Amino acid sequence: MAEVIITGADRQTLGELGEFGLIAELRNWLPPNSRTLVGIGDDAAVLATPDGRVVATTDFLIEGRHFRRDWSSATDVGHKAAARSLADLAAMGAVPSALLVALAGPADLPVSWARELAAGLAAECLRVEGPGASVIGGDTARADSVLLAVTGLGDLEGRAPVRRSGATPGDVVAVAGPLGHAAAGLALLSAGIPDHRLVSAQLRPAPPYDAGPEAAELGASAMIDVSDGLLADLGHIAAASGVLIDLRSAALAPATAPLLAVPAELRHASSTRTGRIPAPSPTTSPQPESPELDAQQRDVLPWVLTGGEDHSFAATFPPGARLPSRWTVIGTVRPAPGKPGPGVVVDGQRWLASGGWDHFTAGQAQQ
Amino acid sequence: MAEVIITGADRQTLGELGEFGLIAELRNWLPPNSRTLVGIGDDAAVLATPDGRVVATTDFLIEGRHFRRDWSSATDVGHKAAARSLADLAAMGAVPSALLVALAGPADLPVSWARELAAGLAAECLRVEGPGASVIGGDTARADSVLLAVTGLGDLEGRAPVRRSGATPGDVVAVAGPLGHAAAGLALLSAGIPDHRLVSAQLRPAPPYDAGPEAAELGASAMIDVSDGLLADLGHIAAASGVLIDLRSAALAPATAPLLAVPAELRHASSTRTGRIPAPSPTTSPQPESPELDAQQRDVLPWVLTGGEDHSFAATFPPGARLPSRWTVIGTVRPAPGKPGPGVVVDGQRWLASGGWDHFTAGQAQQ
Repeated sequence: MAEVIITGADRQTLGELGEFGLIAELRNWLPPNSRTLVGIGDDAAVLATPDGRVVATTDFLIEGRHFRRDWSSATDVGHKAAARSLADLAAMGAVPSALLVALAGPADLPVSWARELAAGLAAECLRVEGPGASVIGGDTARADSVLLAVTGLGDLEGRAPVRRSGATPGDVVAVAGPLGHAAAGLALLSAGIPDHRLVSAQLRPAPPYDAGPEAAELGASAMIDVSDGLLADLGHIAAASGVLIDLRSAALAPATAPLLAVPAELRHASSTRTGRIPAPSPTTSPQPESPELDAQQRDVLPWVLTGGEDHSFAATFPPGARLPSRWTVIGTVRPAPGKPGPGVVVDGQRWLASGGWDHFTAGQAQQ
Repeated sequence: MAEVIITGADRQTLGELGEFGLIAELRNWLPPNSRTLVGIGDDAAVLATPDGRVVATTDFLIEGRHFRRDWSSATDVGHKAAARSLADLAAMGAVPSALLVALAGPADLPVSWARELAAGLAAECLRVEGPGASVIGGDTARADSVLLAVTGLGDLEGRAPVRRSGATPGDVVAVAGPLGHAAAGLALLSAGIPDHRLVSAQLRPAPPYDAGPEAAELGASAMIDVSDGLLADLGHIAAASGVLIDLRSAALAPATAPLLAVPAELRHASSTRTGRIPAPSPTTSPQPESPELDAQQRDVLPWVLTGGEDHSFAATFPPGARLPSRWTVIGTVRPAPGKPGPGVVVDGQRWLASGGWDHFTAGQAQQ
């Protein structure tokens, strides 16, 4: 494992260090890897793409919307910013290879904050298998609050990209990684309980990146990372593939277990606290009845179904695919009926296909 | 030339259209090109990189800092946002192939504004030679003001990247594209003269992108795009290469000519109006004396030397390189003396090597 080199004066602000001083420090904090042909400090970076294709994605992480500086340390923000883009790459079946990080912040931001941010970015990159990922470039600017735009670049290693549009009736639906943990962590933070172990799932989601390329090797027909919530994200697959995704809540019972560690009064309120519950369509009920679950499990099921930001992986596989144990089969793909068309049902009840988090119409994530 | 397809209701706001509605519209507004293997709408895009390497860069464009919505139309902002990243790619000797555009804005931003932004991005991409560039992905988020983070991806077509560090004593220094036009345009806007033809250079810089790969083919030893100002950007080459760059202001006389169209009272104030004048070091004079220039030329020389945002190309070439006419030789590369070391001199006078625009220490670009 590469070591994150920490240098630089801690008490300085970015305004004192200056843009070019910051860029020089970032070069020290963010070591290149073997695929970095030109790294931080030139007009652009150059990355080896031996596959002949590059997978590319960009994500914002905006203070007050995606994180709060009083809840998240700079290192947390670095982990989370990296995770959002790395998970998008893995969800295409790619192995992440590089990040470009554009950072804007106030002139009085301590240099130590930027250094810890870089440490978080570098540490999250080290969670990537193989040659690993590293920060190869970016931009800096002054802004009233902190915001990041992180571009991820990845390599398909000769595989076809796993798109949202390939789900086929008869396929099974499976997930790898936690569901609802980040949403439960947000509820705990909002309730003033920052020292609960589920809080770290909100502040530093830890997606199993290698599950993405693994799913591609296993023949996944469609895949997405769960950033907006399981129902919303499977809804994207359903819409792109023109299918109905039929989930069984009994299969999600194991996913509810870790969430029962949340105090009962917060669990009961899960459907109103996450801020990520899709509005039910006229043909749905507001919450699955899930007769196979007990009352406690039903209380936390909305977190499992609609909690975003875990960046776990949801994929569809041809029937008969032999899935490793970390993949849990939670449903099947069926033909979409004529009306209301493609979407997701849970125990036979329909939820909105594209419900869940919408940046322009929904409220703020952490307020 | 591909056609920019314009659809969608004009009077809607982003809040009414919603995040997923906006993404659907963006797919219509931003057509893919032949290298786009997976475009807008999946977890990530996939781009062909036949060279086996990809050149990548990210740049912010922030309202109130890089543009003002009362000065720039949305189409202007699209052109400028694209130009910043496309020029960085060309300055490595690469042919731009794709952009990822992260757009944050207020919920009450009209959909028509986003549509015109997309039209500007697409139109600027059409200025790229060869297979051309297109917008292949991005992100959207809500923010109090408009900000963009644009990632550019490019192809080296088998060439070595042209870095900042390759300038060698004996090389000639040459530029392609206008110098100081964007700064003069900013001064005109600030003075309330928005209908002057130089204003368009500020609102829609039009870099000669093909000059970048051309310079690489001609054997350029170092190259940069002039984003912070000629002296500042040549200073980056001088520092990275460990050389002294020796400019002759007489060679810049032709570059001053278009700037003489600015009203005399603004010309005379050029050194205080651009906001981009590097502080002179203890060993410099505040402004070159430039005895070979007349008084009018001397008045606008600071724009030529320190005006940013033209995104023209400055490169060093081995002695004897036969340069096409759009490249103007403006100086030579010399060994850096022991003290004060690498830097840039104009008519023998030294300016700060890394002077010019600094986002954290300088004032706002357009205030």
